Amino acid sequence: MRLSRFFLPILKETPKEAEIVSHRLMLRAGMIRQQSAGIYSWLPLGFRVLRKIEKIVEEEQARAGAVQLLMPTIQPADLWRESGRYDAYGKEMLRITDRHEREMLYGPTNEEMITEIFRSYVRSYKDLPLNLYHIQWKFRDEVRPRFGIMRGREFLMKDAYSFDIDKEAARHAYNRMFVAYLRTFARMGLKAIPMRADTGPIGGDMSHEFIILASTGESAVFCDRSLLDLPTPGEDTDFLSDLSPIVEAWTTPYAATDEMHDETTFAALPEAERVSARGIEVGHIFYFGTKYSEPMGARVMTAEGTEVPVHMGSYGVGVSRLLGALIEANHDDDGIIWPASVAPFHVGLINLKPGDADTDSACAGLYARLEAVGVEVLYDDVDTRAGAKFATMDLIGLPFQIIAGPRGLKDGVVEVKERASGQRESLSLEAAFNRVREALTA
Amino acid sequence: MRLSRFFLPILKETPKEAEIVSHRLMLRAGMIRQQSAGIYSWLPLGFRVLRKIEKIVEEEQARAGAVQLLMPTIQPADLWRESGRYDAYGKEMLRITDRHEREMLYGPTNEEMITEIFRSYVRSYKDLPLNLYHIQWKFRDEVRPRFGIMRGREFLMKDAYSFDIDKEAARHAYNRMFVAYLRTFARMGLKAIPMRADTGPIGGDMSHEFIILASTGESAVFCDRSLLDLPTPGEDTDFLSDLSPIVEAWTTPYAATDEMHDETTFAALPEAERVSARGIEVGHIFYFGTKYSEPMGARVMTAEGTEVPVHMGSYGVGVSRLLGALIEANHDDDGIIWPASVAPFHVGLINLKPGDADTDSACAGLYARLEAVGVEVLYDDVDTRAGAKFATMDLIGLPFQIIAGPRGLKDGVVEVKERASGQRESLSLEAAFNRVREALTA
Repeated sequence: MRLSRFFLPILKETPKEAEIVSHRLMLRAGMIRQQSAGIYSWLPLGFRVLRKIEKIVEEEQARAGAVQLLMPTIQPADLWRESGRYDAYGKEMLRITDRHEREMLYGPTNEEMITEIFRSYVRSYKDLPLNLYHIQWKFRDEVRPRFGIMRGREFLMKDAYSFDIDKEAARHAYNRMFVAYLRTFARMGLKAIPMRADTGPIGGDMSHEFIILASTGESAVFCDRSLLDLPTPGEDTDFLSDLSPIVEAWTTPYAATDEMHDETTFAALPEAERVSARGIEVGHIFYFGTKYSEPMGARVMTAEGTEVPVHMGSYGVGVSRLLGALIEANHDDDGIIWPASVAPFHVGLINLKPGDADTDSACAGLYARLEAVGVEVLYDDVDTRAGAKFATMDLIGLPFQIIAGPRGLKDGVVEVKERASGQRESLSLEAAFNRVREALTA
Repeated sequence: MRLSRFFLPILKETPKEAEIVSHRLMLRAGMIRQQSAGIYSWLPLGFRVLRKIEKIVEEEQARAGAVQLLMPTIQPADLWRESGRYDAYGKEMLRITDRHEREMLYGPTNEEMITEIFRSYVRSYKDLPLNLYHIQWKFRDEVRPRFGIMRGREFLMKDAYSFDIDKEAARHAYNRMFVAYLRTFARMGLKAIPMRADTGPIGGDMSHEFIILASTGESAVFCDRSLLDLPTPGEDTDFLSDLSPIVEAWTTPYAATDEMHDETTFAALPEAERVSARGIEVGHIFYFGTKYSEPMGARVMTAEGTEVPVHMGSYGVGVSRLLGALIEANHDDDGIIWPASVAPFHVGLINLKPGDADTDSACAGLYARLEAVGVEVLYDDVDTRAGAKFATMDLIGLPFQIIAGPRGLKDGVVEVKERASGQRESLSLEAAFNRVREALTA
């Protein structure tokens, strides 16, 4: 993409309303624009990252056997009366009356609707297990939206729902999502730690929050250091096999959010093993049994010919929130430092002298070659001063910068800068191409 | 995808409420489910087609230089007061009051919001031309939603907005979208005819509807037969060049919707040239000058140093509506006939005897080989009777079926059926693989 044809409205001033670094950087880097309290437009740079995150989530959901569909944003109130949540949900639910005075709502989540879909079509244990998910905009009318897209009102969530014949089968479904989440966040360059969460009235041990560590995180978390070094399950993980050994390895060491923290147990760990840090919740998985299937009549026939309510779980990933979390975990004083897997572009190619024939031709050639091998390039072909170009590229945080100007090109070289380390190398055009390609396709 | 792990709720009965064939077929094929009047869930098969359509739209928008972003579904009422449309819009606008009693609405379109984004950042002619688009769910509270997703209330639309320094430049922007639309619909296997549309109070000739012909179309259309044979602009079209010769070639022959039809002009055509048919609107492009930029203060500096309101156009594609239109244009008594470019899968692989070791192994091998070369296969590995398998595959309309059973495999052959022509061939596994791969990657 040529910068001259892109839309990248960089802000020079730091917006006053932004309280946290990810919000500040997203505004400054022209990634989002607030349209009203807690409601944002995703400008082209932000939109590209959103898409990258979605794609990773989708690939890992598919690997774990979840099937994608798409439910609408607007739901009928009656559906929520069946589960009893319409009145219980309170003011966070955005309630709407349509032209025929029917009560509707903007979905904050989809347990009721997916249960309605399930009960309409599925009758037999033979059609189980089933895991259906979607990635859709949700609305929660927060009383005080803040922290940019981290606690917005209109937000993008992946929510999956599993259906199984009994609790034992539901545990397998739960484990599949547990492992999928480990892989999902790891692919984004995040270290996400599953932490036992409050299961409320249902009880049991089948609810985990996935928390990433970031010094600017929203809440205090505590864990055993060994969790930081556990290997992520590989691409070759067989999701049809018993995944409980993986889940056990990840849930046996101590890990707890503020709310669930038990100081006595934590204090019993060797001091060097105790990690006390700040965290951000990016995922939440939950087994809730027959909480919705029972009142809503989602029943299936067992192999023995009896009818039972189906056992369900739900599995959320905060897709839009992840952008904020990623920036909280990856930035420095100059701006964002994107992991390559979610970077809006891989390379920022800076032409220091647009209009200079040699520089233009060297840049155009490199741009075309990199794009041809699947490296996504933002080519700054705009006539502005070098200082502004460098500051913008550091701010938007693409993994690599290639800086080309008449002086270097006279000697046949360009500069390659790795954003994360700040390391710079003078390389021939050929070597620069190879350096970047190899690093990004490794 | 193995059918045993997919979610494909086929209906045996034809639903009574469905008045048109696309609605009936989408319900029967398990593509959509109505959640309330005019509001649908997209079940996995329908969702896959929606994604294919989106991808083609995105690729052609990018080719024409439009930049993708994403605006939210919920908008503040005040924005629409600036343009004067808040009161003018009437009951089709879904109006919402949030917990703080602020007036909001579910966006039916985005002229106001995109103008707000533009005026917040862009100051100079140097940043033009600019075309920003998104693909987002919209809501129009139709008094009587009908025809399934063809006239739903919550629907997915691509809407692009162009910004130019004057009318002449805006005409170029208009032409780029015009040509992009010709390519977009052609890639979906549709013959879309641009027809001059009513420009309302603004006047001029810069508004066209893109209408596809289908015998079950919603309205009468009239055109010169020569339009049916005009070649679609190629992939190598240079969108920076003057596209007016292409636009002229497509707009000179007679073409009109019912509303704009001039019987005298039409009757003057040689009888063999007169096409009188039914059509479905799938796109609409529009130049509206300074209609929004003037009242909303979206002004830019010209090269001469004067400030002028920016000239705008908007360009819509009915993304979800296209599914219905595609089916109206491509079906027979047995079901849907998807063009390969938008088919939910390319091949339906039917295992006639799951559990039979040879058949299972032949199918699994073919399935893996086809997937490995990028052919998307729905593998029916479920133990049901052959008649039901055939009927389902015809109903969901994948371009090819490969039918494998013990009897044929004894002689080393499977049957390949092309859905559109009904043509069947007995081929070796190798030949079947090549037949399908070549047809789909041609």
